[in-house]
Amino acid sequence: MDKNIYIALMHYPVLDKEGRIITTAVTNMDLHDLARLARTYDISGYYVVQPLELQKRLVEKLLSYWQNGRGGEYNMTRKQAFERARLADDIEEVINGIKADTGEDPKIIGTSARKMPDTIKYGQAREMINEGGPWLILFGTGWGMEPEFLKSNTDFILEPVEPLAEYNHLSVRTAAAIIIDRLLGLH
Amino acid sequence: MDKNIYIALMHYPVLDKEGRIITTAVTNMDLHDLARLARTYDISGYYVVQPLELQKRLVEKLLSYWQNGRGGEYNMTRKQAFERARLADDIEEVINGIKADTGEDPKIIGTSARKMPDTIKYGQAREMINEGGPWLILFGTGWGMEPEFLKSNTDFILEPVEPLAEYNHLSVRTAAAIIIDRLLGLH
Repeated sequence: MDKNIYIALMHYPVLDKEGRIITTAVTNMDLHDLARLARTYDISGYYVVQPLELQKRLVEKLLSYWQNGRGGEYNMTRKQAFERARLADDIEEVINGIKADTGEDPKIIGTSARKMPDTIKYGQAREMINEGGPWLILFGTGWGMEPEFLKSNTDFILEPVEPLAEYNHLSVRTAAAIIIDRLLGLH
Repeated sequence: MDKNIYIALMHYPVLDKEGRIITTAVTNMDLHDLARLARTYDISGYYVVQPLELQKRLVEKLLSYWQNGRGGEYNMTRKQAFERARLADDIEEVINGIKADTGEDPKIIGTSARKMPDTIKYGQAREMINEGGPWLILFGTGWGMEPEFLKSNTDFILEPVEPLAEYNHLSVRTAAAIIIDRLLGLH
């Protein structure tokens, strides 16, 4: 595949349970699950977006452990998973990274568990992706990306995973897996 | 929906990295992610299959914290997620539980990241499920369910999630999310 798909796991700006804008802490499991997912679906780059200095150092440590360190010796498949993972301060840095890779600004797709106006369906997004990239898909941690950020920084927003479900509280790990499979999977 | 779908997260008999049959320890994150997933897709019952006594006590503690305890007061959506979660010693206990619920033996679908003979495709499974249940879908922890167990205890085995991918190491959390979405999701 050469679809030039990138994903970003956003730790800021996201909401907490009470709807306040926060920066979430990185979760080991999120970083691993998304790296493995990205590699399975042959995603070109996986950005961990985290602005806090101490948190960034944690991510750097984890990435270097798996990319260059002892982790890779112990578990080769995990090393492969993390090969295309990078750390970024914010979405601008992600966009610049993709531009440096591909020569183009990516078109940006936002995801949200909230019902928002003017969302697109998975089939539509899949067709657009097949027409060529680069594409960047954003996933929010915490209680999801801040809606104003989402509106002003994306070209399209996907509808929630199961818009008719009465219960709507997937983890970002499982939601990202379902969304990536719907957009890129062989069904 | 009234499709009578059940899922089971198997901690035994599964393989370790070297291919030995082991019982894995329960992982908090697996239990939470699958409970939330099961609730989102309106699954009738979610079994955690774990034969070890000490491990069972851990699962019971977690379930009772969310089902009846302080967890449910603190986070209502997590309480809802765990409402249909149950603990079982082995697959026989799962089958008996489903029979007690529905009056029928479930048809059993196995999943595996390995290429196995006579697997079925997701579209086929989805059609069969739509014809009526009860159905039980098994997910293996560790390095996957022991192949002989899988063959002799299932009616059908699904092909791997991305059979053409060169990299094939999803977490059980993300693999289960993708599989459940392919079988039950509104696309």
